[in-house]
Amino acid sequence: MVMAVERLHALRRSRAGLLRVFEPPDAAVADYVNRLGAVAAWQGIRDRRAPRAVLAPTAARTENRTAAELDALAEGDLEAATAVGARIIGVGDPEWPEAAFVAFAMASGRGTKNAAPPVALYVRGRPLAALPDQALAIVGSRANTAYGQRVAADIAMGAADAGRTVVSGAAFGIDTVAHRAALAFSGALPTIAVLACGIDRAYPVANTALIDRIAEVGAVVSEYPPGGSPARHRFLVRNRLIAALSAGTVVVEAGRRSGTLSTASASSALGRVLMAVPGPVTSALSVGCHLLLSSGTAILVTGADDVLEALGSAADRNDREPSGRSAAHPTDGLDPEVARIYEALPVRASRTVAQLSVESAVSGVRVMAALAELELHELVARQEGAWRRRSRSAGS
Amino acid sequence: MVMAVERLHALRRSRAGLLRVFEPPDAAVADYVNRLGAVAAWQGIRDRRAPRAVLAPTAARTENRTAAELDALAEGDLEAATAVGARIIGVGDPEWPEAAFVAFAMASGRGTKNAAPPVALYVRGRPLAALPDQALAIVGSRANTAYGQRVAADIAMGAADAGRTVVSGAAFGIDTVAHRAALAFSGALPTIAVLACGIDRAYPVANTALIDRIAEVGAVVSEYPPGGSPARHRFLVRNRLIAALSAGTVVVEAGRRSGTLSTASASSALGRVLMAVPGPVTSALSVGCHLLLSSGTAILVTGADDVLEALGSAADRNDREPSGRSAAHPTDGLDPEVARIYEALPVRASRTVAQLSVESAVSGVRVMAALAELELHELVARQEGAWRRRSRSAGS
Repeated sequence: MVMAVERLHALRRSRAGLLRVFEPPDAAVADYVNRLGAVAAWQGIRDRRAPRAVLAPTAARTENRTAAELDALAEGDLEAATAVGARIIGVGDPEWPEAAFVAFAMASGRGTKNAAPPVALYVRGRPLAALPDQALAIVGSRANTAYGQRVAADIAMGAADAGRTVVSGAAFGIDTVAHRAALAFSGALPTIAVLACGIDRAYPVANTALIDRIAEVGAVVSEYPPGGSPARHRFLVRNRLIAALSAGTVVVEAGRRSGTLSTASASSALGRVLMAVPGPVTSALSVGCHLLLSSGTAILVTGADDVLEALGSAADRNDREPSGRSAAHPTDGLDPEVARIYEALPVRASRTVAQLSVESAVSGVRVMAALAELELHELVARQEGAWRRRSRSAGS
Repeated sequence: MVMAVERLHALRRSRAGLLRVFEPPDAAVADYVNRLGAVAAWQGIRDRRAPRAVLAPTAARTENRTAAELDALAEGDLEAATAVGARIIGVGDPEWPEAAFVAFAMASGRGTKNAAPPVALYVRGRPLAALPDQALAIVGSRANTAYGQRVAADIAMGAADAGRTVVSGAAFGIDTVAHRAALAFSGALPTIAVLACGIDRAYPVANTALIDRIAEVGAVVSEYPPGGSPARHRFLVRNRLIAALSAGTVVVEAGRRSGTLSTASASSALGRVLMAVPGPVTSALSVGCHLLLSSGTAILVTGADDVLEALGSAADRNDREPSGRSAAHPTDGLDPEVARIYEALPVRASRTVAQLSVESAVSGVRVMAALAELELHELVARQEGAWRRRSRSAGS
């Protein structure tokens, strides 16, 4: 029993050490941790035995420090986290949202930026569970309008009322409205705030009380070590987690160059359902939403009902029996779900993973897996970020 | 010569007779007229020799009337039309917009409702020409908001300024705004109103002056006999003509069950470009637009630039002669007021017509005229609904 406790502590210290010594996301480090486990990976990095690709991104924060000093730093991080009521979680923990991060592997294979999963997470509050299936990300501009506030609150309340977890970034504006609206509901996990700084900090400072309240009835999450500052690039990196932890993202208001669009982009890249709320064309804060809509990247939603329907239709129909296929069909012999993805592709036009996910009611992750298989069979081809059927020779 | 004149009159009387005796659209009648020509078709109907499918829809308005009485009725319609300065046109007339109606045959084959071309049209005003290629339909709710007005005016001005004919229905609300905005431009055919009543009537009555003004610088069109009342179903039937006469239709504001959606539906059925302007999801008048957008039926447009781009007009100003002015100042040789508008534009920022009007103390209409002239001289360019100076190459 004592040994088990010690092993557990060593595991946690290893995770804390890992989060301390590199700047996420890093595919090489994530892959190394995934293959060896956190304890062995931490030892490899701490003791300078890891492969060069792993030592490079961890060099700056480990050089001139002994293994004992590095362990002490990790220990200190665990203490700082405990002091604010946070724990560190990782692969193997029941609450680790494994399913939320599967899509990173495939997105990474396609060269998507920032496409590496976190190697561990600090968490304050309730256990993370049923992610990403039961969660909805609501994001938008910090400089929102009264219109955006109203719509964000409507969607967050509708989602929380339906038992969904509202995920956002605790920023001013739409984020704040979304968290606050969800907090009014008493689900198991009404809302999650993903921070771009250490779990022991609150950013923006004026949202300290809000973040504390979220940690009481929901959860606050960070992949940065305690004390980590909310550096500019960390918001983009953090946004991929908001997208990954949710079955879909809805963009409420966003200017032409809003940082919000990086969450939207991550959501698409991960095969999640991306939604946008239209607004007055005379409002600069609707430009980003309209761009997402007119490009076909996002689905148009006008309220909570639309959002739940878009999320639901992507999940509900997963178990349906495929229709019986006749002999000379190209998808003969394929897994029914793979065949369904093929059928969802129109004969001459192309579709994004997100569109296929919606149309076929198969989750984005599984759509990507199906496309990979279809590509192997030379039935589909990628074209400018979307997929289309390959024309078949008459005889085949 | 006398015979030619008589033949022409007989042709017109036949067309007037045809429009008098059936309720359009009717595929059998349209097909009969198409095959036999208006004169023979009119004789066949008038003398009860036409096929049963053609006699049936014309029975109610021909029974108990002799051929001479029917000819007299047609003659009376021609006189009533002439009294209000209208003419009747049909197949074979140079201004008959044959190309606008070709798509009806295909739509009809697909079982589309109301998919029969008009057999003739009454027209007041300038010759119909370059339809549907050069025309844009702008339609929307009668109960519009200030937001809808602003957007409709922006799109109509941008379209008319680009030489497009703005087609609408002369109704209150968006229709009125679109016609009025287009009337400020002096193109060959700035706007067309398609009526759901006789060419000698004005509906709504309060728009009599507007309709008269459209007949002066644009054109007013109807397929109903003089005196024809604006019966409810005729608006839906008329809407197919608004769609057919235009290369595309943009829906500015429309409620969930707006009659405007029938124009949208006709536009789609005829293979025209269907566009919709998003708006606040909190506005009941945006629901129709959002339905068109979320179903993928319409393209999202946020202003005149989007509309012109969607129509593929991509500013055909490439063939214009480059200005050979090497004078010290770009406004040399320009009218002083035009020069003043140019000076009112900041070097790097853009201004709307309204802003320029305020800043230059020149009325909005004259600001628009000045901008049109400045654009011809390649001194200014439109950008997202506003205007900015064009940067000049060093050598020019």
